[in-house]
Amino acid sequence: MLFHVLLSLVVLVSVEDASLAASTLQIEDEELTHTEAIRDDEMSQNLTRTNFEQLEKLSNRSRYVARSCKEIQDRYHEHEDGLYFLTTANGMVYQTFCDMTTAGGGWTLVASVHENSIYGRCTVGDRWSSQQGNNANLPDGDGNWSNRNTFGAAEGATSDDFKNPGYYEIRAEDMSVWHVPNNFPLEHWNLAAILRYHTENHFLRLYGGNLFQMFSQYPVRYNVGSPSNRGPAIPIVYDHGDKESTKRLYGPNSRGEFEPGFITFRAINIEHAAMAICSGVKPVRGYNTEHYCIGGGGYFHTDQCGDFPSFDWDRLGREQGWSASKEMTEAAVLLFYR
Amino acid sequence: MLFHVLLSLVVLVSVEDASLAASTLQIEDEELTHTEAIRDDEMSQNLTRTNFEQLEKLSNRSRYVARSCKEIQDRYHEHEDGLYFLTTANGMVYQTFCDMTTAGGGWTLVASVHENSIYGRCTVGDRWSSQQGNNANLPDGDGNWSNRNTFGAAEGATSDDFKNPGYYEIRAEDMSVWHVPNNFPLEHWNLAAILRYHTENHFLRLYGGNLFQMFSQYPVRYNVGSPSNRGPAIPIVYDHGDKESTKRLYGPNSRGEFEPGFITFRAINIEHAAMAICSGVKPVRGYNTEHYCIGGGGYFHTDQCGDFPSFDWDRLGREQGWSASKEMTEAAVLLFYR
Amino acid sequence: MLFHVLLSLVVLVSVEDASLAASTLQIEDEELTHTEAIRDDEMSQNLTRTNFEQLEKLSNRSRYVARSCKEIQDRYHEHEDGLYFLTTANGMVYQTFCDMTTAGGGWTLVASVHENSIYGRCTVGDRWSSQQGNNANLPDGDGNWSNRNTFGAAEGATSDDFKNPGYYEIRAEDMSVWHVPNNFPLEHWNLAAILRYHTENHFLRLYGGNLFQMFSQYPVRYNVGSPSNRGPAIPIVYDHGDKESTKRLYGPNSRGEFEPGFITFRAINIEHAAMAICSGVKPVRGYNTEHYCIGGGGYFHTDQCGDFPSFDWDRLGREQGWSASKEMTEAAVLLFYR
Repeated sequence: MLFHVLLSLVVLVSVEDASLAASTLQIEDEELTHTEAIRDDEMSQNLTRTNFEQLEKLSNRSRYVARSCKEIQDRYHEHEDGLYFLTTANGMVYQTFCDMTTAGGGWTLVASVHENSIYGRCTVGDRWSSQQGNNANLPDGDGNWSNRNTFGAAEGATSDDFKNPGYYEIRAEDMSVWHVPNNFPLEHWNLAAILRYHTENHFLRLYGGNLFQMFSQYPVRYNVGSPSNRGPAIPIVYDHGDKESTKRLYGPNSRGEFEPGFITFRAINIEHAAMAICSGVKPVRGYNTEHYCIGGGGYFHTDQCGDFPSFDWDRLGREQGWSASKEMTEAAVLLFYR
Repeated sequence: MLFHVLLSLVVLVSVEDASLAASTLQIEDEELTHTEAIRDDEMSQNLTRTNFEQLEKLSNRSRYVARSCKEIQDRYHEHEDGLYFLTTANGMVYQTFCDMTTAGGGWTLVASVHENSIYGRCTVGDRWSSQQGNNANLPDGDGNWSNRNTFGAAEGATSDDFKNPGYYEIRAEDMSVWHVPNNFPLEHWNLAAILRYHTENHFLRLYGGNLFQMFSQYPVRYNVGSPSNRGPAIPIVYDHGDKESTKRLYGPNSRGEFEPGFITFRAINIEHAAMAICSGVKPVRGYNTEHYCIGGGGYFHTDQCGDFPSFDWDRLGREQGWSASKEMTEAAVLLFYR
Repeated sequence: MLFHVLLSLVVLVSVEDASLAASTLQIEDEELTHTEAIRDDEMSQNLTRTNFEQLEKLSNRSRYVARSCKEIQDRYHEHEDGLYFLTTANGMVYQTFCDMTTAGGGWTLVASVHENSIYGRCTVGDRWSSQQGNNANLPDGDGNWSNRNTFGAAEGATSDDFKNPGYYEIRAEDMSVWHVPNNFPLEHWNLAAILRYHTENHFLRLYGGNLFQMFSQYPVRYNVGSPSNRGPAIPIVYDHGDKESTKRLYGPNSRGEFEPGFITFRAINIEHAAMAICSGVKPVRGYNTEHYCIGGGGYFHTDQCGDFPSFDWDRLGREQGWSASKEMTEAAVLLFYR
């Protein structure tokens, strides 16, 4: 409830901003052919001011030496969400977002899956399936679920795909997933998320400690098996949302096929296309998983190839038939390890 | 005048180099099947030598903590153009180029728009319009004018598109724009630029402090309005070039449509395609802005989609009809804030 | 011999892992609907442990100020292979892999050429030829052999294309080349390589000190000349492999056209397509170089455009007719300077 109030507030402020600017524009456009300075605006003045004390504090985090947010928490007793510096076992330094509060904290953001164009069928930007078109000759697609390629930046994780060295490098036990509306800034991800959950049974210990290792065992590859050959389905604990709200994020037809309360890996649909993650659900019948599971290999039947493969089957964002809700389709999926 | 002399000099030197190398090649190719060392070449010896004192000095800039080049200038009294380390309000560290000399200095390079292939119609590399083909279903195209995605590196800003966190993060008052011939190295950008100008009326205060905020108010989106719905047109002060030289950079037909001496944001053409920036000019009639404005949404009529949408309408680089000059078409557009 | 034993070991371990996980899966999937913790697994426990002493040591390398691995070796007496921090003459800081052992060490990794899809004909990911399709209007293709664009990360150099500022910035004398099977981790590159060699005649002194300068003199451009206009062919010293093993990496028909024991730059085939590097060989007759040379301009006849242009002419990875071996086709080409 509080959440919606906050969001509305933000919207109101920016509308006010726009109208202010628009009304000023007419004057400005006509009269400012001479280069007179526009008078100070009290509000934007405040926005301009940099808090150098805070900036120095954040900057000093570059002294930390740790491979994961969990290690940052343990070694340096940091409990604030935000960007930290991590170091790989090979000494590569990078920055990422740490969730230091959920269920004890220590969660490292290692990747985000962002659908840049639901209309693009494995085109540019579909890094978690294929950027080579729908092509049965490329069963693994771009292969990013099981290679050491990295892309994007943490601050842009809701604006484009993101993958850092932690994805293949950190040895973790559990995962956390946040569905955050596209383009939201880092400082509001937690509040803005439409769904947040984590696992707590340490399942990653059985699969090599991270998704890179798990997907080496369960390749996200076209024609690697049938629906019964899926990877593990792990029970989840909700941090925002519940089983009912999870169901409503997907299409009515999809709801008949899955059981909420799980995260499932390497799902396979009845046409033998592979998907990487079914977020919040476990497919139990029908197996038209292309409508509610994300990522994938390089080939799907009926041209459904993409990072959110066929979330728009019965029109985009309509939450009808097989189509997922607008909220789900327009939210990036952030993946954390601990 | 001095500028052209300098350029010629560079060309002469490299031609000399090539012929030297070519004449040596025949010998080398035949005789050096045995691995005898090629004798030292006095000139390349000099090129090899690293100035470690200078390198240490540049390296020490990593201690600075500031969000913009202006703050670097104010806090650390630096007055040399070059690469500096900046920190976002969230603590993300990145390097970019600071112009510390033009009109008082303190300008932060936040982006560059580079046309990698004028023949590609919203293909790979058209990050400032769309990489998904010309598609009316994607009115915003890639959306990079109003998201937090980042790409490229400062040193490569004339070789490919560039966007850093400063683009959405810095709260600025004015802009500066440099048109630098493709592939020029950072140390020669200033001298090599074919056009350089800045605003001085602090207009960004009215639009949220940066382009990210402005383009949230004025979306770069197909079919969002008609030519009269364009965003602000701001008067400019020339640092290299003038109104006359600005006109000559665009095609003869275009010159009849715009007034030089401005930078215009979110232009809309008569076919309702949106463009992000008209550099150096304000459209005042006709509104075939696709021939002289850059960036855009995801759809243009007659397949003119691209980062420099239709700068080659009457043949590439011919400065005839609607075609922009070769100089303009083959120069990256560097965007600075202060 | 030792090498194959090691590789087999790795494979055995991961198969064991998979079956262990698979057998556990059934239990887990059924019973772990309640969130009970999976008991500690002795092996994964070990994998999880971070060696902080080692991490601190690697992290301290950020204090080094040098432009190349050679300078790191000379100034700081480091003799261990791995990631180091380098600084460009302009002050840009980046990390890359240094080979500190081969033939005296001091080799800087500056680029890798990775074929992401042999079926893609100058599509997304073909950064070393063209990502714009096979197009005679774009004779230079993406132009990355002779611009300042950078992409990828050192740790991902066998998973995707990689290019850092050293490519255009370091003034070197010699080159070293490693062919490393795709997706191998950095710590095993040296042992896993199917071919490793270096030059020792300081040839780069004659061509401006690096590939960026050389390819400015010898553009990798369609229709720039005929086979006789190729760039230099430099004799190599083998570090792993020999002339015989080099021949076997390419197709039987190709073997009749080249002489092993060289690295050749800017090769041109009989149809006037340009390629950047013939690794390990010098074309001496026939000049169907598209079957054994890599990188290129933006146009090849018969739709053979790509980073490994036509290595699959007589079926992929079959080592028959003109087709290169599977080993060669599925290995990234790592380029070093010294």
